[in-house]
Amino acid sequence: MKGFDINPGLVAGKLKGFISADVSAKGFSKVVLGLSGGLDSTVVAYLSVSALGRENLIGVMMPYGNLSPEALDHAGKIAGRLRIKTEIIDIKPMIDAYFEKISASCDLRRGNKMARERMSILYDFSQKHNALVIGTSNRTEILLGYGTVHGDCACAINPVGGLYKTQLRKLARYLGVPSYILKKPPSADLWQGQTDENEIGYAYGDIDRLLFSMIDRKMNDRKLVTEGFDKIFIEDIKNRVRRNKFKSRLPLVAKI
Amino acid sequence: MKGFDINPGLVAGKLKGFISADVSAKGFSKVVLGLSGGLDSTVVAYLSVSALGRENLIGVMMPYGNLSPEALDHAGKIAGRLRIKTEIIDIKPMIDAYFEKISASCDLRRGNKMARERMSILYDFSQKHNALVIGTSNRTEILLGYGTVHGDCACAINPVGGLYKTQLRKLARYLGVPSYILKKPPSADLWQGQTDENEIGYAYGDIDRLLFSMIDRKMNDRKLVTEGFDKIFIEDIKNRVRRNKFKSRLPLVAKI
Repeated sequence: MKGFDINPGLVAGKLKGFISADVSAKGFSKVVLGLSGGLDSTVVAYLSVSALGRENLIGVMMPYGNLSPEALDHAGKIAGRLRIKTEIIDIKPMIDAYFEKISASCDLRRGNKMARERMSILYDFSQKHNALVIGTSNRTEILLGYGTVHGDCACAINPVGGLYKTQLRKLARYLGVPSYILKKPPSADLWQGQTDENEIGYAYGDIDRLLFSMIDRKMNDRKLVTEGFDKIFIEDIKNRVRRNKFKSRLPLVAKI
Repeated sequence: MKGFDINPGLVAGKLKGFISADVSAKGFSKVVLGLSGGLDSTVVAYLSVSALGRENLIGVMMPYGNLSPEALDHAGKIAGRLRIKTEIIDIKPMIDAYFEKISASCDLRRGNKMARERMSILYDFSQKHNALVIGTSNRTEILLGYGTVHGDCACAINPVGGLYKTQLRKLARYLGVPSYILKKPPSADLWQGQTDENEIGYAYGDIDRLLFSMIDRKMNDRKLVTEGFDKIFIEDIKNRVRRNKFKSRLPLVAKI
């Protein structure tokens, strides 16, 4: 990545080419996408329609009962706008059937179970429709490990994994994503009131500038401090990146 | 791999060292293992106990209702023999809750959904017990792609992924795995009467010798034929390996 400030027109063209080339190289013409009503999956929906045509994208909405009616409404609106096929599966019965058996639990375990349930449904639909699962994890999430392994991180192809959240928002504006999607606070919607930034503890704008300087520009700590980043902030983010590296690695297999 | 005929004592020692080194390198002391009553998970249970001690292995049994009572019984016996902690979760309620919603389906889709449900439970227990998920896919399965992506293929560490099924059986005998495990036909137990060899269409002994000659020894088709392998058999297995390569790759992420 050259600069942090992307040219959204160029990036959109490049990603459109990436999707159509990679999907056909893998021997497919269709993709399935989990449509959450959030920014990332909306951008991937727009890109997929422009790359493959609206008849080759299946949007799957997987609410947990009535937990996030607004998110479901937004996902439906995007699907309608793009005139794509959709499927809706309520994950509540499967999730509740599991947690009935588990005496004690916590939001994190519930959230991960939900993310993995959605993955397994997407992969089931990918088999049904003979389509690839297209992913929506952005570069910020991947670097911070803010995602569930074998859950929302799972996909066959990911067009937005090289874009920081801030860059993705710029791309979304360029693509004409409606403002009700652009303006709401990013959330994994795994429990009520959850927002990414509350959970991570910093704003995406700050995190992205730091990650870009640290990882893409390879600045050391001293340089980062002179650039105006707080020491504790640097340490926090660095630890997070280090701790979560395993999430984007294949399992270690013993060699004989 | 030097020769097809392994020295089980040497291999056992090597894998024991691999498990203890990799688990502690990742900052853990415990592992969770899906205990199916089959050969592969039994071998991994034996190796894990010898590497980490019986108190550091949690065996999770995840039957689908009463589909395979014998498999569950065998898994329980192995757990008892090794005196490890166990958890039992019946996956029937979650699986049935899902397929109630799906009008048409097939054994393959059901089998994959079950494998992914088991994965999500193993990862949930890995969080509960602060333990790594230890995998059981052998080299034959990995090369043939005979497994579910983000299902039984999913793990943090896999000690037996370098061993062909035939080699694993030799190792099992050395480790003292009881004959009721050694002698039953390998099965994923995803539906009644399923056996691996019926589904793949060839016997493991033949497949393994072919794969070893083809992949480890890098023999070309002509050489394979002179070694006595049937042309159609070679073609079949080769196609399968090629077609399923994607299963052991990370998703392609667009670079910006």
